[in-house]
Amino acid sequence: MPSHTEESAVTVLGLGPMGRALAGAFLDAGLRTTVWNRTPGKEPELVKRGAVAAPTPEEAVAASGLTVVCVLNYDAVDAITRRDAVAGALNGRTVANLTADTPGRARETAAWATGHGIGYLDGAIMTPATTIGTPDGVFLYSGPERLYLDHRPVLDALNGSHTHLGTEIGQAAAYDIALLDIFWTAMTGYAHALAVANAEGITAKELAPFAKGIGSILPPIFEQLADDADSGNFSGEDNPITSAASSMAHIVHTSEAHGIDAGVMRAAEGLARRAIGQGHGADGFLRVTEILARHRLPGTDTRQRRR
Amino acid sequence: MPSHTEESAVTVLGLGPMGRALAGAFLDAGLRTTVWNRTPGKEPELVKRGAVAAPTPEEAVAASGLTVVCVLNYDAVDAITRRDAVAGALNGRTVANLTADTPGRARETAAWATGHGIGYLDGAIMTPATTIGTPDGVFLYSGPERLYLDHRPVLDALNGSHTHLGTEIGQAAAYDIALLDIFWTAMTGYAHALAVANAEGITAKELAPFAKGIGSILPPIFEQLADDADSGNFSGEDNPITSAASSMAHIVHTSEAHGIDAGVMRAAEGLARRAIGQGHGADGFLRVTEILARHRLPGTDTRQRRR
Ligand SMILES: NC(=O)c1ccc[n+]([C@@H]2O[C@H](COP(=O)([O-])OP(=O)(O)OC[C@H]3O[C@@H](n4cnc5c(N)ncnc54)[C@H](OP(=O)(O)O)[C@@H]3O)[C@@H](O)[C@H]2O)c1
Ligand SMILES: NC(=O)c1ccc[n+]([C@@H]2O[C@H](COP(=O)([O-])OP(=O)(O)OC[C@H]3O[C@@H](n4cnc5c(N)ncnc54)[C@H](OP(=O)(O)O)[C@@H]3O)[C@@H](O)[C@H]2O)c1
Repeated sequence: MPSHTEESAVTVLGLGPMGRALAGAFLDAGLRTTVWNRTPGKEPELVKRGAVAAPTPEEAVAASGLTVVCVLNYDAVDAITRRDAVAGALNGRTVANLTADTPGRARETAAWATGHGIGYLDGAIMTPATTIGTPDGVFLYSGPERLYLDHRPVLDALNGSHTHLGTEIGQAAAYDIALLDIFWTAMTGYAHALAVANAEGITAKELAPFAKGIGSILPPIFEQLADDADSGNFSGEDNPITSAASSMAHIVHTSEAHGIDAGVMRAAEGLARRAIGQGHGADGFLRVTEILARHRLPGTDTRQRRR
Repeated sequence: MPSHTEESAVTVLGLGPMGRALAGAFLDAGLRTTVWNRTPGKEPELVKRGAVAAPTPEEAVAASGLTVVCVLNYDAVDAITRRDAVAGALNGRTVANLTADTPGRARETAAWATGHGIGYLDGAIMTPATTIGTPDGVFLYSGPERLYLDHRPVLDALNGSHTHLGTEIGQAAAYDIALLDIFWTAMTGYAHALAVANAEGITAKELAPFAKGIGSILPPIFEQLADDADSGNFSGEDNPITSAASSMAHIVHTSEAHGIDAGVMRAAEGLARRAIGQGHGADGFLRVTEILARHRLPGTDTRQRRR
C-alpha cells in the first residue's frame, strides 16, 4: 500500500459515542477512514458517509498509517490489540490511543507497543463527543515528539485544540485523571444539590440560573489559587477553612434532615476538619491539598519524574 | 429618632471579612452606617471612612430602621440578638439576616423574630466578600414581600443583583445550601486533583489552563441537565453512567496508588454504582439525584411547601 494513501488515511477502532464522533470528523475532513467495532451494527451510518468497514481489527489497522483507538478502557484496548495478527499488522505503524485510563496503564501499554515495533502516542479527550469536529474539542497527547509531529496533520482534521504535554507517556492520562477528578466531583455536587433543592421544594430549573452563576466563578478561582497551591501559601484571609467547614456542616445537616445521603460532603468536610485539627483553621481551603499529599502512606510516594 | 434618618441609615452586626465588606459598601453609597462586632478592633478602618461604632448591639440596632446581621452562623446570631435589651431595641424594626445556615434555622429564627415584633428577612450572599459593592455580588432573600420592598433601597446600596425568592422564609437558606453544595464539592474536587497532579509531577500552574477549561464547561451542562432532572428523564446516550463510573474508578485507583486519600471520589463512585446496580447503567449521571432522593429514610421526607 503506497505511503501516500496511508498519510491521508486513518483507522478508528471502537465505535461508541466518542469513536463514532471521531470517525465522523475524519470523514468530514475528507480522510479515507476505516472503522471497526467489536459488536457489529454501529458502522452503517458511517459507511453511508464514506467510511470503509473492516471485518477484523487486523485488516482495519493495515489500511492506515495511523490507528486511533477509543474504547471503554485499556482492558478493552488490550482485548483488541494484544493478539498476534493485530500486533503484527501494527508493526511499523502508529497507534494514538485516545481511550481514558490511568497513567500506569498508559506506561505499560507504551512498553508493550515499543516491544512490538509499534509507534505509540497516548492521548485524552477532555470534552464531550458532541464537541468533536468543532473548535471546542480539547485533545491532550504525550509520547515521542517526532511521532506527534508526523501525525499531527491527521489529528488536526478533528478540529479543536491539540496539546502535546511532553514525552513522558503517562502525562496525558495524568492530566486526564486530574481534570476528570474536578469534573466528576463537581457533577456529584450538582446531583446532590438537586436532591437537596428538590426536598426543599426547589426545581432544577429554578436553581439553574444560580447554579450557572456558581459554576462560572469556579474557573477564575481555580486559576487564582494555582500559584498559592504551588507555593504552599494557602491564604484564608477572605475565606478561612473554618468558614468552609461550617458551610459543609450545614449542607450535611440539611441533607441528612431530609434523609438524603451526604457521604460525599461528609468526606469533604472530614478533609477540612483534618486541616483545622492540624492547626490550619485560618488558612484557605486549598490547604487540604497538602493534607492529602502529606497523608501518603510510607513507601507509596511514587511521584513521577517527567522526561 | 426621625424616620427620615432611619431610612437612609443601616446597622451592620458582625465585622468579619463579609461584614466589613457590607459596611464598606454602605459607606461608599453614602448611608449613615453603624457597626458593631463582638470582639473590638475590627472597626477602626470603617470608622475612618465615616462609620459610627456602637458600644453595644442594642445601641447599634437602635440607630437604624434596618439591621444587617452577618456572622459565622445562627448560633452566633442568637448569641447577639436573643437578649432582652437587643430584642427590645429591635421591636418595630427590621433584621436582614445575611448569615449562612440551614433552612430549618432560618424558619426558627423567623418565628422568634415574629414573636418579638421584629420584621425579619432571611438572606444569603452567593459571592465572595471581594464582590460586595461591585456588580458581581449576588444576594438572595426570602420573607415578607412588603418588608423586602421597603428595605430594597438600602440593600441596593450594596450593588450587585438582588433576588426575592418568595415569602417562605427558608428559601434563601435552601438555595444557599444547594449552591454551596455545588461550590464546596467542586472545590474539594479541585484540591484533590491538585494533589494527584502533583504526585504525577504536574504543577497547579501547568494544570490551570485545563482546569479552567473543565470549569467553564460546567455552567452550560448544569443548565442543559436541569430539564432532564425535573422530568426524571436522565438520558445517557452520549455519556452513560457506566462510563462515569469507569472514570471514577480510574481516579480512585490513581489516587490511592500514590497513597492519596480518595474518600470523596469513593463516595461519589458508590452513588454511580448504586444507580448501575438498580438497572440504570445506560442512563446519564444525573440519575444519582433520583437515587439519593429515593433513599430518603422513611418518615424523613420533610419536603417543604413553598408559601
Ligand atoms: N463520550 C464522551 O463524551 C467522552 C468524552 C471524553 C472522553 N471519552 C472517553 O472515550 C472513550 C470511549 O468512550 P465512548 O463514549 O465512546 O463510550 P464507552 O462506553 O466508554 O466505550 C464504548 C466502546 O468500547 C468498546 N468496548 C468495550 N469493551 C470492549 C472490549 N472488551 N473489547 C472491545 N471493545 C470494547 C465498545 O464496543 P462494543 O460496541 O462492542 O461494546 C465501544 O466501541 C472512553 O475511554 C471515554 O472515557 C468519552
Ligand atoms: N467571606 C466570604 O467571602 C463569604 C461569602 C459568602 C457568604 N459568607 C457568609 O457570611 C457570613 C460571615 O462570614 P465572614 O466571612 O465575615 O466570616 P465568619 O468567620 O464566617 O464570621 C466572622 C464573624 O462572626 C462573628 N462571630 C462568630 N461567633 C460569634 C459569636 N458567638 N457571637 C458573636 N459574634 C460571633 C465574628 O466575631 P468576632 O470577630 O468577635 O469573632 C465575626 O464578626 C458567614 O455566614 C459566611 O458563610 C461569607
